[in-house]
Amino acid sequence: MPADDLPIVLDRRGHEPLAVQVADALRNAAGSGALRVGDRLSSTRALAVRLGVSRTVTAAAYDQLLAEGWLAGKRGSGTFITAAPPIHRVRAHTSAVDEAGVGYRYAEQTRPAAGGGTAVRASSPVAASPESGLVDLTAGRPCLDVLDRAAWRRAWRAAADRPPARVVDYAGHPEFRRAVIDHLLRHRGLAARPDQLLATSGTTAGLDEVAATLPPGARVALEEPGYQRAAVTLEARGVRVVPAEVDSDGLRVDRLPSGLSAVYCTPAHQFPLGSRLSAGRRVALVERARAEGFLVLEDDYDGELRYDVAPLPLLAALDPDVVAYLGTSSKLLTPALGVGWLVAPPVLHARLLAARQRAAIRPSPAGQLVFTALAEYGDLARHLRRLRAELTERRQRVVEAITGTGAPVLGDAAGGHLRIGLPSARAEQAVIDGAALAGVLVPGLSEYHWGPARVFGVSVGYAGPTRGELDPAVAVVAEMVRRAWAQG
Amino acid sequence: MPADDLPIVLDRRGHEPLAVQVADALRNAAGSGALRVGDRLSSTRALAVRLGVSRTVTAAAYDQLLAEGWLAGKRGSGTFITAAPPIHRVRAHTSAVDEAGVGYRYAEQTRPAAGGGTAVRASSPVAASPESGLVDLTAGRPCLDVLDRAAWRRAWRAAADRPPARVVDYAGHPEFRRAVIDHLLRHRGLAARPDQLLATSGTTAGLDEVAATLPPGARVALEEPGYQRAAVTLEARGVRVVPAEVDSDGLRVDRLPSGLSAVYCTPAHQFPLGSRLSAGRRVALVERARAEGFLVLEDDYDGELRYDVAPLPLLAALDPDVVAYLGTSSKLLTPALGVGWLVAPPVLHARLLAARQRAAIRPSPAGQLVFTALAEYGDLARHLRRLRAELTERRQRVVEAITGTGAPVLGDAAGGHLRIGLPSARAEQAVIDGAALAGVLVPGLSEYHWGPARVFGVSVGYAGPTRGELDPAVAVVAEMVRRAWAQG
Repeated sequence: MPADDLPIVLDRRGHEPLAVQVADALRNAAGSGALRVGDRLSSTRALAVRLGVSRTVTAAAYDQLLAEGWLAGKRGSGTFITAAPPIHRVRAHTSAVDEAGVGYRYAEQTRPAAGGGTAVRASSPVAASPESGLVDLTAGRPCLDVLDRAAWRRAWRAAADRPPARVVDYAGHPEFRRAVIDHLLRHRGLAARPDQLLATSGTTAGLDEVAATLPPGARVALEEPGYQRAAVTLEARGVRVVPAEVDSDGLRVDRLPSGLSAVYCTPAHQFPLGSRLSAGRRVALVERARAEGFLVLEDDYDGELRYDVAPLPLLAALDPDVVAYLGTSSKLLTPALGVGWLVAPPVLHARLLAARQRAAIRPSPAGQLVFTALAEYGDLARHLRRLRAELTERRQRVVEAITGTGAPVLGDAAGGHLRIGLPSARAEQAVIDGAALAGVLVPGLSEYHWGPARVFGVSVGYAGPTRGELDPAVAVVAEMVRRAWAQG
Repeated sequence: MPADDLPIVLDRRGHEPLAVQVADALRNAAGSGALRVGDRLSSTRALAVRLGVSRTVTAAAYDQLLAEGWLAGKRGSGTFITAAPPIHRVRAHTSAVDEAGVGYRYAEQTRPAAGGGTAVRASSPVAASPESGLVDLTAGRPCLDVLDRAAWRRAWRAAADRPPARVVDYAGHPEFRRAVIDHLLRHRGLAARPDQLLATSGTTAGLDEVAATLPPGARVALEEPGYQRAAVTLEARGVRVVPAEVDSDGLRVDRLPSGLSAVYCTPAHQFPLGSRLSAGRRVALVERARAEGFLVLEDDYDGELRYDVAPLPLLAALDPDVVAYLGTSSKLLTPALGVGWLVAPPVLHARLLAARQRAAIRPSPAGQLVFTALAEYGDLARHLRRLRAELTERRQRVVEAITGTGAPVLGDAAGGHLRIGLPSARAEQAVIDGAALAGVLVPGLSEYHWGPARVFGVSVGYAGPTRGELDPAVAVVAEMVRRAWAQG
């Protein structure tokens, strides 16, 4: 039975939250065979409309089943039943989820079911190549091919040689903060002091801390399309997220509504569109921030990586009093260090630090020491040079593969992803599904919209795959893009 | 001018939050000389009463000034002006704060002021020994004297030899989770599966994640006296904290109110009183949790450390369906790893993991690898044996030093702290002030009360100081305690 027709009866005055009821109904349907492995579920939006509940309810139900391991998928490529739960027994299959990531886990879990004769629909992402593994072209993966393992080991040894700290610094290791300040000055043109910087576990963790200082019900504008995990993080802190229009020059500053507490943006390399915020809009944004008293959250997740476009001054350099700057080592090196940073205006810095001290919560310091050693030995700078050369070449190969398909390649020569334009939502879904069938995971832009998608296409992350994986995977995407444009 | 008489005029219909106005008034008073370095401020409670505002307002103002570095102190020992800010200019002196911790920072910042002739009151904690540095007897510090540096370096090298992860596991490294599961089985008698466990940055960070899943306005009971940072963490998530009575058998389960969402407690070693939750109450607590549908948050911060008292079954072992178990490596090894763990019932585990995945926030993984290597090589077990022997002996030395002062030594032979009973709040303050004058930081039990203190005494952490520091510091405390009991 397709999920669209599944009868779900909700008890609106019952004790159980609606999301739990929806999750239970879906789980039971899978357990009883009404839904089968490989069945694709309706979108959270469509199901919400059909059941007459808010999309929050259906999204929470899907999240629950995703976490339990009965579902797999991403917003762009649909959500599928991956395993049939024994009825009336909930058990979290989370270790499989975590170790392998969404794509691989899907392949893992459908394989035995398919072998046992259970129906797997043709649109199931990996049915055609269950043994090959998926190549993941999601943006934001690190490029491990150029990481010098000898330098990596040297840095860990240096970290090991330091006497273990008796008391841990809530702002982050002093040496780490100095190393980051130096990095920001050299690679991002930002002059800041170590006492303005806080170590974080990453950009989103830093955003979460800032969100906790905003008043309840604060309105924060976020680029649309944009980084949806930032929206989730803000909403979890009681913030109202307001979509902010983006064009090829980045955030439309003139269209921002009034009454904002903050604006979250990715000026160096708009995520996911790949454009820069123009110089004029940079000035306009910080001027509005100062005039209207809002905070600018500058997410500079891969700002160190630019190939043939000139960097523009950071917002934090234009007006450090109104900008909280967020950076990370996870795109430059690897998320395995779990290390990022936040440069904040004095009053915000003091509030964030006081909150950490009051609650005794701080980012784990171990990775900070490794990053510090990499920076101090010059290995970080050498790595950045190698990484820029590698990604420049990879980007060129992707551009060449797409040229001739009729599709525009969009986004600056920067970072680790580019965007391929597509004519419609249907074309986008066709590319995603076709690529998935051939074992390539490529996210659609609909995934990065909060509301209905306005921009269509796919985002191709070229940093994450190994050298051997990239070309065949991109060839698959190019072929699907060619077909999509041919069909119009 | 004593802070008690300082005129503070608040603009209750003004744009600025009241806390900001209070902080500004105090900062300006210090800048203008109305308050001088060394002046002791009223308690947040007293100031709140005088100004007719809530204590939240005054506490936030003090926190702000503490973070900015103009104030120093702890609730038990009072809050002091440490430096005179230039008027109309706020600058955060946070690096000094972070590197040294509160006690040392105080010494740092008063020294030049004292040298310059600024009045420093006699009750200022370190005026008598500004050059000696403070010995910190706060509970919860790690015992680095017994950490085998060769094993430490070996573990970091092993971590360095692993290929850096391309994708980071939101639940924590699989090997880390297996190592912790093994540790919990061997040392805490808890049989759990790796897929029930989440890596955290520490117990409070784990508590914060659980708090985020509670409904807004949820009521959570917390031991009184208890771990105030847990209360701060819960309140920051919109939780209403309800004090829960404690006696020499731990939490008074029979006195818990109804309508709770959760109960936070430290059953293995009540913090700060040092008692165990009795076996009967353990059963009663999980039975009430099951009957009334609340969650038990079992903070097992130092449960591995017991010397001559038998461990009782963990609440999480009695009924894993209603207990979230929180543990950490920071008391066993060092907070420098930034590694803890959380074992949760399936539905809560799935929710926590889904929240991490949605927001792309996870604990930094670097320290997990080091912990894993220490565990796998057997170094963690060897370290625990050495640590138990060392702390048994240290505890004995403290007990001997206090014997004869007339004061009762309270708390089980466990963990890294014990409690010295005192007859009154006045006696407690006298011991704290006297010890501080002699360069010893010892926290009073008033610091661990949410409301007015019900239990008087000081808590002596014997793990943190070096071997050479401990005996003289304890001799100071013993002398102060003797005087306090002599004066009655």
